[in-house]
Amino acid sequence: MNNTEKPELLRSIEVCLTPRLFSEIQTKGDYIVVLVDILRATTSICAAFENGVKNILPVATLDQARLLKDQGYLVASEQDGKKLDFADFGNSAFNFTAEAIGGKTLVYCTTNGTRALEIAKDALKIAMGSFTNLTALTAWLVQQDSNIVILCSGWKNKFCLEDTIFAGALAEKLLDGHQFQTHCDATHASIDLWRIAEPDILDYIEKAAHRHRLKDLKLDDIIPYSFTVDSTRVVPVYSAGYIKDEQPNN
Amino acid sequence: MNNTEKPELLRSIEVCLTPRLFSEIQTKGDYIVVLVDILRATTSICAAFENGVKNILPVATLDQARLLKDQGYLVASEQDGKKLDFADFGNSAFNFTAEAIGGKTLVYCTTNGTRALEIAKDALKIAMGSFTNLTALTAWLVQQDSNIVILCSGWKNKFCLEDTIFAGALAEKLLDGHQFQTHCDATHASIDLWRIAEPDILDYIEKAAHRHRLKDLKLDDIIPYSFTVDSTRVVPVYSAGYIKDEQPNN
Repeated sequence: MNNTEKPELLRSIEVCLTPRLFSEIQTKGDYIVVLVDILRATTSICAAFENGVKNILPVATLDQARLLKDQGYLVASEQDGKKLDFADFGNSAFNFTAEAIGGKTLVYCTTNGTRALEIAKDALKIAMGSFTNLTALTAWLVQQDSNIVILCSGWKNKFCLEDTIFAGALAEKLLDGHQFQTHCDATHASIDLWRIAEPDILDYIEKAAHRHRLKDLKLDDIIPYSFTVDSTRVVPVYSAGYIKDEQPNN
Repeated sequence: MNNTEKPELLRSIEVCLTPRLFSEIQTKGDYIVVLVDILRATTSICAAFENGVKNILPVATLDQARLLKDQGYLVASEQDGKKLDFADFGNSAFNFTAEAIGGKTLVYCTTNGTRALEIAKDALKIAMGSFTNLTALTAWLVQQDSNIVILCSGWKNKFCLEDTIFAGALAEKLLDGHQFQTHCDATHASIDLWRIAEPDILDYIEKAAHRHRLKDLKLDDIIPYSFTVDSTRVVPVYSAGYIKDEQPNN
């Protein structure tokens, strides 16, 4: 489809740099939200589906997570990057092996990701974005007939580099297909930052504050995996309370 | 002063990308806020002081502006970029000629800038930053003994490119002096975006949404002036209700 002569038909892309700014989005009409939390939730959720989890039940509070643990569910839960005692796993992608979660429902409680799901509840769908599913996610988004808001989780509502460069990578791929346009400064900035980062992502991300927090917590072994592009074809999508895989066929 | 052996003594720099994120700043202790509204308030305020205004009284509401107009003050006021009927000027820097404002007090009402002054009220001082006073502002900030938060006004609480690249330009100059450090992702991003923009700022800013809004309003004649670096030595500083010039002597 070549929409260059009908620019009003182009679907819009908007980047929201932190959840605190979601109330300011200017996208009109229906939209899909791509949720991004590179150094935790969304990369880990992609890993869980790659390793065969049946579905994921995200919960917002520790009380809900404890209750479901008591009912026999597998539970992933952490606070400020640390696994909570009652849980089966923290939220690291490395926890979600096929042996541990294949064919099962996983209850997932995070300080960041679940709040973002709540904020984005008016979206048609909410997809999970990570470097590991970048190309599959792009293909899925192209197949939907909807505008797109890329919602970066950030860290405690602050801007973070790792989510922003992913937003830039995704926006650049979408704009390359001529079905999308953007009038959003945050989208332009994200793309520019991604182009700086792309030649050596791990070197670029060295200056990110969250990268240093993970190092202090000895959780930074996940860094190289979190910035590996296209290791999976899964597209985890949140709808009606659950996250399921909607990976495109082609 | 060489602080490389005492990193804990380094003063911090933090960039706040929009007023909506100011509640999330992590700067500890005393700080100065640098307010940035490149395509209106702070560039215009610098122009007014360059042209000899005595001081500026910023007001938050149109009612206050009208009241002071009735009392004989010169009033600058606009809404969404358009001059209001009762006012003497809009907020364009080009209005503030020496003939019009030299030696006088100017009442200044804006939709963006005054709200930011209110948000930053816990700062020790609030300085006005623009490309036109970049080097003078840097020298003044170095002379203060305080941490620095650079507050971008954005547009209706959204991220904007023009304020962000100025934040990057200022942060880069401050960090170059070895008295400052940053652990703020937004600061790193701002510097990276500034480095992309610096070789041809006007070309870079072509994609900014606000640049197009000004064009639609036929107010974009101010663009080249707004990105001219170091045309003035003034450092407008807000304190106790007024903005006055505190330009450094050296």
